[in-house]
Amino acid sequence: MSVRSLTEDDVIARLCELVEQSGGARVLLGIGDDAALWQPSRSHRSVLTTDALVEGVHFTRTTMSLEDVGWRTTTANLSDLAAMGARPVLATIALGVPEAMHVEELLALYRGVTACASEENLAIAGGDLTRAPVLTITMTAVGEVRASHVKRRSSAHAGDVVAVTGTLGASRAGLDILHGRVSLRSEQLREEALLAHRRPHARVREGRWLAASANVHAMMDCSDGLSTDLARLCAASALGARIDSVPVAASARAAAQAVHEDPCAYALAGGEEYELIFTCASRAYAHLDRRFRATFGHSLHRVGVMRAGQGVVIAEDGKERPVPRTGWDHFSE
Amino acid sequence: MSVRSLTEDDVIARLCELVEQSGGARVLLGIGDDAALWQPSRSHRSVLTTDALVEGVHFTRTTMSLEDVGWRTTTANLSDLAAMGARPVLATIALGVPEAMHVEELLALYRGVTACASEENLAIAGGDLTRAPVLTITMTAVGEVRASHVKRRSSAHAGDVVAVTGTLGASRAGLDILHGRVSLRSEQLREEALLAHRRPHARVREGRWLAASANVHAMMDCSDGLSTDLARLCAASALGARIDSVPVAASARAAAQAVHEDPCAYALAGGEEYELIFTCASRAYAHLDRRFRATFGHSLHRVGVMRAGQGVVIAEDGKERPVPRTGWDHFSE
Repeated sequence: MSVRSLTEDDVIARLCELVEQSGGARVLLGIGDDAALWQPSRSHRSVLTTDALVEGVHFTRTTMSLEDVGWRTTTANLSDLAAMGARPVLATIALGVPEAMHVEELLALYRGVTACASEENLAIAGGDLTRAPVLTITMTAVGEVRASHVKRRSSAHAGDVVAVTGTLGASRAGLDILHGRVSLRSEQLREEALLAHRRPHARVREGRWLAASANVHAMMDCSDGLSTDLARLCAASALGARIDSVPVAASARAAAQAVHEDPCAYALAGGEEYELIFTCASRAYAHLDRRFRATFGHSLHRVGVMRAGQGVVIAEDGKERPVPRTGWDHFSE
Repeated sequence: MSVRSLTEDDVIARLCELVEQSGGARVLLGIGDDAALWQPSRSHRSVLTTDALVEGVHFTRTTMSLEDVGWRTTTANLSDLAAMGARPVLATIALGVPEAMHVEELLALYRGVTACASEENLAIAGGDLTRAPVLTITMTAVGEVRASHVKRRSSAHAGDVVAVTGTLGASRAGLDILHGRVSLRSEQLREEALLAHRRPHARVREGRWLAASANVHAMMDCSDGLSTDLARLCAASALGARIDSVPVAASARAAAQAVHEDPCAYALAGGEEYELIFTCASRAYAHLDRRFRATFGHSLHRVGVMRAGQGVVIAEDGKERPVPRTGWDHFSE
């Protein structure tokens, strides 16, 4: 049944059935009134972030299922909360829906949203539903963080270690496989890449853990690629950075080799991978990494160092060269 | 300069210059980080609402300037906060921008947003910018309200007076004028109608004032037309309603007469007018209306009465007939 044959209230009622299963104890009033209502923590600050996915720009239905689209919209928002060190609380979704879309398709999208949201205790508490020429999903999420734990992009120190919470490039490899630009012989690497592209996880627990350390000075998420996002962190902190090492995902290394590209450049230009980039007092990094590994079962990856000046360079064979911003940009060609 | 020739960060920097002028003392961190940060009130609940405007669905550039579009997106969100009795705090904007759009056009849109937002102390604290096939603006706003003041749609009582905060139909008359379906001789009525359509005001102060009264039981905004929204309030409260009187705006009356339509039916089918609908203990209504007039300089309008049963009827010449939902619906044809 296409949405055209239903009223707005009918469609909302169908979506509500799915969403009510994802709880949220402090949400006092969810979908169905003019606004959602919640009790903010008295001891925390609140944070607010928004991310939109547009069909044909961020995804196509040939490379992602609608459940994947719902999942990734949620991850994008959770990742922004993680980058602030915040725990997720609640979110709204504004959906722009093409007339020919079926209600079952909308429900699939919502299943992806609720599957991802419920893993991180994010309540879906309201939204807006409208016609649109292409499927457009805008999620806005609220989180909470202790004032002393807030990590900005602008507070890196010269001499800080730059590190990331995971390897990079797998999501790009997944997209390249789906577009037929790359084919990987290893089924395992292929699966790693596809999963990274379709079902990425936000580093919510890791973000809160890192935020609790006073030695972590600045943090942001890496959703547009390390080359682009580290440049943003540098600009916000009025510093430069030197990259010494790029942690390339195994599937990204294989994909880069398949297309005869440098694996580091391939991974630097990735995007939509939702690892966290952070800077940390140099003397504290080794201890932080050990504690991180003990807590999460995998290592941090040291990328380089913050320094006076501006711009991002990469060190290779004893020489430095500037890193172009090769990540995702919504406008430049 | 079209947005295509700039980077995302360039565009955001231009928008920031405009937005930083609209303050917000409790917003600790605005545009430029992963998320906005604020200090919620310790004595209030928080509310969250989202509304999207899509080009070709909610507006066309022939009937509204981009400043008008920014203004009305903001009003739609403020109106949802008003309907909860909440004071505005901060908002994010997710913008979907066609490639050919000029930066100056985006700035015009933002001028409309900030003009409307600053009137009600709503800080624009972040957002997301992406390409899209048509201009799409999704705003998500946070407000605050005392727990005891929250007004839901679902808490009307049988016997309550149903009232609205202003006359209805002017926005529809404005749209009909812009589409050339109606022409009004009176320049003053024409202006009233066009202003109601292009620059509607949310009833923020009125909503907070009404919410403070324990005699006001249920409240919502009338953004989709009284016939549609009163039916929603009835459904949420598991009650019916009888309409005795429709407060028709002077311009709507003239427009209805020009197209030989019943003025009440014309006003009932309006939409995008952002008055508040509320229900009030019958014995308290006259006193509430007097106090309202003394505070705001204009009257409330008594529309009818809540009653047991379901559905909305209108009383005419001693008979009752059902009111069809003729307001705005995003899907039904």
